[in-house]
Amino acid sequence: MIITLKKDTPKNEVERIIKSYEDRGFQVNNSQGSNYHILGLIGDTTSLDEKIIKANPWIEDVTRIAAPYKKANRLFHPEDTIVEAAGIKIGGNEKIVIIGGPCSVEGEDQICRIAQEVKDAGGTMLRGGAYKPRTSPYAFQGLESEGIRAMAEARKRTGLPIVSELMDAEHIDEFVENVDIIQIGARNMQNFSLLKAVGKTKKPILLKRGLANTIEEWIMSAEYIMAGGNENVILCERGIRTFEKYTRNTLDLSVVPIIKEKTHLPIIIDPSHATGNWKLIESMSLAAIAAGADGLIIEVHDNPECAWSDGAQSLKPEKFANVIKKGRAIAQVIGRDL
Amino acid sequence: MIITLKKDTPKNEVERIIKSYEDRGFQVNNSQGSNYHILGLIGDTTSLDEKIIKANPWIEDVTRIAAPYKKANRLFHPEDTIVEAAGIKIGGNEKIVIIGGPCSVEGEDQICRIAQEVKDAGGTMLRGGAYKPRTSPYAFQGLESEGIRAMAEARKRTGLPIVSELMDAEHIDEFVENVDIIQIGARNMQNFSLLKAVGKTKKPILLKRGLANTIEEWIMSAEYIMAGGNENVILCERGIRTFEKYTRNTLDLSVVPIIKEKTHLPIIIDPSHATGNWKLIESMSLAAIAAGADGLIIEVHDNPECAWSDGAQSLKPEKFANVIKKGRAIAQVIGRDL
Amino acid sequence: MIITLKKDTPKNEVERIIKSYEDRGFQVNNSQGSNYHILGLIGDTTSLDEKIIKANPWIEDVTRIAAPYKKANRLFHPEDTIVEAAGIKIGGNEKIVIIGGPCSVEGEDQICRIAQEVKDAGGTMLRGGAYKPRTSPYAFQGLESEGIRAMAEARKRTGLPIVSELMDAEHIDEFVENVDIIQIGARNMQNFSLLKAVGKTKKPILLKRGLANTIEEWIMSAEYIMAGGNENVILCERGIRTFEKYTRNTLDLSVVPIIKEKTHLPIIIDPSHATGNWKLIESMSLAAIAAGADGLIIEVHDNPECAWSDGAQSLKPEKFANVIKKGRAIAQVIGRDL
Amino acid sequence: MIITLKKDTPKNEVERIIKSYEDRGFQVNNSQGSNYHILGLIGDTTSLDEKIIKANPWIEDVTRIAAPYKKANRLFHPEDTIVEAAGIKIGGNEKIVIIGGPCSVEGEDQICRIAQEVKDAGGTMLRGGAYKPRTSPYAFQGLESEGIRAMAEARKRTGLPIVSELMDAEHIDEFVENVDIIQIGARNMQNFSLLKAVGKTKKPILLKRGLANTIEEWIMSAEYIMAGGNENVILCERGIRTFEKYTRNTLDLSVVPIIKEKTHLPIIIDPSHATGNWKLIESMSLAAIAAGADGLIIEVHDNPECAWSDGAQSLKPEKFANVIKKGRAIAQVIGRDL
Repeated sequence: MIITLKKDTPKNEVERIIKSYEDRGFQVNNSQGSNYHILGLIGDTTSLDEKIIKANPWIEDVTRIAAPYKKANRLFHPEDTIVEAAGIKIGGNEKIVIIGGPCSVEGEDQICRIAQEVKDAGGTMLRGGAYKPRTSPYAFQGLESEGIRAMAEARKRTGLPIVSELMDAEHIDEFVENVDIIQIGARNMQNFSLLKAVGKTKKPILLKRGLANTIEEWIMSAEYIMAGGNENVILCERGIRTFEKYTRNTLDLSVVPIIKEKTHLPIIIDPSHATGNWKLIESMSLAAIAAGADGLIIEVHDNPECAWSDGAQSLKPEKFANVIKKGRAIAQVIGRDL
Repeated sequence: MIITLKKDTPKNEVERIIKSYEDRGFQVNNSQGSNYHILGLIGDTTSLDEKIIKANPWIEDVTRIAAPYKKANRLFHPEDTIVEAAGIKIGGNEKIVIIGGPCSVEGEDQICRIAQEVKDAGGTMLRGGAYKPRTSPYAFQGLESEGIRAMAEARKRTGLPIVSELMDAEHIDEFVENVDIIQIGARNMQNFSLLKAVGKTKKPILLKRGLANTIEEWIMSAEYIMAGGNENVILCERGIRTFEKYTRNTLDLSVVPIIKEKTHLPIIIDPSHATGNWKLIESMSLAAIAAGADGLIIEVHDNPECAWSDGAQSLKPEKFANVIKKGRAIAQVIGRDL
Repeated sequence: MIITLKKDTPKNEVERIIKSYEDRGFQVNNSQGSNYHILGLIGDTTSLDEKIIKANPWIEDVTRIAAPYKKANRLFHPEDTIVEAAGIKIGGNEKIVIIGGPCSVEGEDQICRIAQEVKDAGGTMLRGGAYKPRTSPYAFQGLESEGIRAMAEARKRTGLPIVSELMDAEHIDEFVENVDIIQIGARNMQNFSLLKAVGKTKKPILLKRGLANTIEEWIMSAEYIMAGGNENVILCERGIRTFEKYTRNTLDLSVVPIIKEKTHLPIIIDPSHATGNWKLIESMSLAAIAAGADGLIIEVHDNPECAWSDGAQSLKPEKFANVIKKGRAIAQVIGRDL
Repeated sequence: MIITLKKDTPKNEVERIIKSYEDRGFQVNNSQGSNYHILGLIGDTTSLDEKIIKANPWIEDVTRIAAPYKKANRLFHPEDTIVEAAGIKIGGNEKIVIIGGPCSVEGEDQICRIAQEVKDAGGTMLRGGAYKPRTSPYAFQGLESEGIRAMAEARKRTGLPIVSELMDAEHIDEFVENVDIIQIGARNMQNFSLLKAVGKTKKPILLKRGLANTIEEWIMSAEYIMAGGNENVILCERGIRTFEKYTRNTLDLSVVPIIKEKTHLPIIIDPSHATGNWKLIESMSLAAIAAGADGLIIEVHDNPECAWSDGAQSLKPEKFANVIKKGRAIAQVIGRDL
C-alpha cells in the first residue's frame, strides 16, 4: 500500500505515521519526491481501510497495490476451482453448463413442462424463481414455498438439478434442503447478512454481480462467502447499469477473462437480464461462449407473452435449442465442450 | 400507458390485444400512424408490467404515462407529509434537521462524548452505526447490540433522538424498541424482504437511495414500505455511482426539487457518504440547504484519524458547528429555519 | 409522438396546442385519461424537437415513437448497405474485415514493417494514427503529414488499404487524396462541423461511438454524414465509459445486433480501445465475431513496450495472427467468412 | 509515479527497467514486497504515459502520484486567477457573475429585447448561440454570422459583454473580433485542434466540462489552452451523463470545491443544461452559489414555448430576476457579493 503525504508534512508527523505502521508489523519504505513524500507499506494490507488512513489531513492519497481479497485470489490459489452441483461440474476445462427455465415458477405443470423442454433442447440445469425481487410492491411476488416444491417435482421428473434465488436468510433451510445451487441476486450482492448466512452452508452459490458494482466489490462479496467457510462460489455477470437506454443493462463480457485472471472461480453469463430483450440473447450467448464463459443462464418460457414476469427477455424452447447448437460449435473452436 | 405496435401487425392480432386489455377493465384508444400503430390504455396501470407486455413480438415499445407509485405520489396526496420522530418534525416547512454522529459506535464513552458535541454544536439528532455493512469481511463489522445499547445511553444523557442502520429483519425488534429512526442503507434499498419487514412497523424509516438506483426505483422502494402500512418514510440522497473517480460518489442535489414535485415525503442529504471527503462537506451541506433539503445527516468524529471506519469523511465537531451556523443563515434566505 | 398534458390543462389551451400541430400538417389524436390528457401526433416528426415542446408548462412529458433518423433507418432501407473501400467490401454477408496496425505511425520503416506483419497474419487493412488526439498537451501528437505519407508508402508496398483518423476539416483534402477510410474518433463523434465536412466527400467514413453517447445519438451522427450526401458510413464500437475501473472502457457488444436491427449500416468492433489491455483482446475479438460484427480494428505493434502511444493495448503480430485464425473458425459457425 | 512489477520479474529485467528511467533523469526508489516489487519514480512525470509503461508484461500496474497538469495546478500557482472580460472580473473573491440569455439567437429584435431584460434583472453578461451544436442534422443550426452581428448590436445597446460558442477554428477571427468570452462546448471539450486554436488567442475561454469527462481530463483540456499561451480559462460545469433519466444530466456541484483545491481557475455553473428543466433551475442556482461558484450561466427567454431551441430549460425574465435576488442574499452568507 502506498501512502502519499503532502510535501510540507512536519518531520515528527512523518515519523509518527511510520512508527504507527511499524508497530502494527509493516515494513515501511520512506521516499521523498520533489512535491510529495511517499510511504510504501510492506506486509498483509487486507485488513487496512483506505478510508480511515485518509482521515489524516497530511495524507494526500492512498493507493492499494495488493488486492484486498485472499481466498478468491488466483495469486494464492493458481488452479481453477471446479464447483460441483448434483454431479455437474462447473469451471476449469469442464463442459460449459447451460441453465434454462422461466423467470417465475407459475405452477407445477408449467415448470415441469418447461423443464422437459430445457432438457430436450440440451440444457443441463433448470432455473426458476419462487421468491421474486420485484421493483413494485404491486407486482407478482412469486409462489414462494409452493414454487420450490414445484421445482423439486420438475427435478424428479427430468433429472435436471435446480437453481433458485434466495432472498432472505429466513428461508435458508428450505433452500439447502431442496435446491442444488442457491442464487444470490444482483440487488442482494452487498446484503452482507445474507452472504454470511450462505457462507455457513456447503451449497454451491451463484453470486450475481450487482447493477453498479465493480469487479473488485463483486470478488469481495465472493470473499465474504468463502471467508465464512463455503468455497463453492460461481460468479454470474448479468449486465451493469450505464447511461445507455436501449438495453435494460449493458452486458460486460470483459469480466470473463478478468475473473479468470484475478480469481480461480467459475464465471457464467446471464444474457437475459443483461439485455432485457429476447432478440439479443442468441448473439450475446454465442459471444459469451467465445469469450470463455463457463456457462450460461437463460430465461426460457414456452409462452413468453403470458409469462407472469419478464416475458420480454425469455426465449422460446426452439430458439433456446438453437443457441445450444451453435454454442457447442463455438465452444469447440476454443477447445471447450458443451 | 402507450403500446406501440409494428405497422404490419395483422388486424386480428391488434383486435386480440385490444380485447385483452378491455377485458381487464381498460379503455383502449386505437390510433394508426404511417409507420406505427399506437394503443393508449386508460385506467389504473400500476399493476401492469411493461416487461411482460413487450414479450409480444408485434409490440415495438411500451411507454408508461402515469407513475407506477400511488401512496408516495404527490398527485394523489398534495400536502407535504411531516414525519415525527421522538417529538422532532421532519418535512413540510418545519425546521431543517441536522443529524450528526460517528460512522461507527466504538463504545459508550465515545458515543456519549460525540453526542454531547453534536448537541452543543446545534445538532438535533444523533447517528451511529452498530451493525455495519462493510465491503470487506475482514473489516470491523460493528459493535452490534452493544452499540445499540451505547446509543440508547447517549440519548438518555443528551436527549438527542437516535438514528441507526438495520441490516436484517432478524434485529427488527431491537431497533423498534431502542431506535427513533430506522435507517435502510443504500445497499439494501432493493432488499425487498427488509422493506416489507419495516413496512409492518410504525417507526420512521430513513430510506437511502441505492448507489445506482433511479429516482423512480427509489420512490418505488418507499412505496413498498408505505404499501405495507408505514407511511413514515424519509428519503435520503447519499450520492450515486458515476464514472468520476475523484469523489467516492456524485452527489445528485437535483433530487431535492424533484422529490418534492413527485412525492409528498421529506428529503434529506448525506454529504459525507456522497463525497467521501471531509473537505467537501461544508460546501455540499450549504448547497443542500439552499436547494431546499429538509435535513442533513453528517458524520462527526472528535478524532477522525482514529475512527474505526470512514474517518476520511467525518467532520470534527468545530467544523460541524460551523456548517450549522452558516446553514442557518442560508435557510433563512429561502424562508426556512434550522 | 405522444404529448402528455396535465389533467387540469384548460380546454382552450388544449385546443390551441392541437391547432398548432394541425397547422403544421400533423394529424392529432386526442385522448383523455383519468389523470392525464394525451395527444398523439401522426406525421413526420423528425424535425420536431422535444425540448422545445416541453417548454409549455402544461405539458408533462413528450415521448418520441418514430426514430429521429431517416437515411440510416432500416425501416426505410431494408437491405444491408455494403461499403466498398479500395475494393474491400464491408457489411452485409461479405467477409469480415480485419484492420490491424499501430496506434501511432512512428516512421516509414515502422509502419511498413508492421503493415507486412499485418498482411502476413491475414489482416485486410492497415490502421495507423498520423494526427493523434491526446489527453495531455505534453504527449506525442503524431507525425502528421509525414505519417500520412509513410502510410501511403506502406500501402504501396503491401497493397493493404489504409485507415487513419481525421481530427479537423483543415486536413480533409490530404485525407481524401491519401487515405482509403477516414476515421472520425470517439471524441469527435459530435463535432458536427467535422461531420458536415466529411459528409461532403464520397470517402468511406469509420464513425466511432463517443465515450458516453447513446446508440441513438451515434446513429444521429451517422445521419449527419448521410444527410450531407455521403452514405458510406461504417459504425465502430470502442467501449463506453462506466463506473468500472479495471478496464479503460466497457465494451458494449449488444450494439452489434441492435445496429443491425435499427440501421442498414456495417458495424465493426475495436477491442483495443474498449479494454485498454492486450490480455483481453483475443477473447473480446472472438466474442465480437460470434456476436455478428462485420469487422475488427485491432492495434498491432511489433514492440509494444517501445510504442510511442497506447502500447498496453497493442497485440504482437503472432497473437494477432492467432486471433484471425480462431476468429475464422468462429465466423464459419455463424455462416460468415473471414 | 509508482510502477508495480510482478513478484517473479527476473532480476535483469528489473535492472533494465530501473536503468531506462534513470537514463531519462528520474531517481528510482526500489522496494520489494512479499507479492509485488515496487518502483517509485521521482522527478517530473507529466510527460510519461501510463499506457506505454503498462505495455511491459512484467508490469502489473502504474499509479500516478503527481497530477499530470502544471500550468493549471494550484500547487505551483497558489493565488486565484482572476479572468477579466470587457472589464468584468471573474474568480477569486470578485463579485459572482450572472450570465443570462437565450439558447439560440433568433434575430436582432429578440436578442436585444432579452439582453435588456437580463440587464434589468441584474445580470452581468449576455449569452446567446449563433453556431449551434445540434444532435439532429434536421434541427435549426443557428443564425451563424448574422447571430454574432445581432449579439454585437445587443452589447452596443445594453453594455453587457457577450459570450457565444465557437464550434470550429474556421470562425475564430470572427469570434476574437466580436465576442467577449469564447465558449467551448461540452461536445468539443476534447476537440484538441480547437483547444490549440483558442490557446493562441488572448480571449477569455469558457471551457465546458464534457458529458462524460473526469475532472482530471477537464483540467487537462484547460492545460491545452494554457500550454498554448492563453491562461484566461474559466471552467464551467454543465452536468454529467449518468444512468438517471429524470434529468437530462446530473449536476455535479462537488466540482466547485474540488476545482478550487486542484487549480487556481474560476469555476461557474450552468444549471440549464445540467437539468434540462426550468423547474429545477432556481434551486440548483442557489445551491451553486452556496457551494462557492464564481458565476452562473442561465438560459433566459421571454417566450420559452416559442424558443427555437431548448425552451424547456429556459427561465422567463421574472424568474431569472428572482434567482439573482435570492442568490445575492446567499452569496453574502458565504462572504461573497453578486
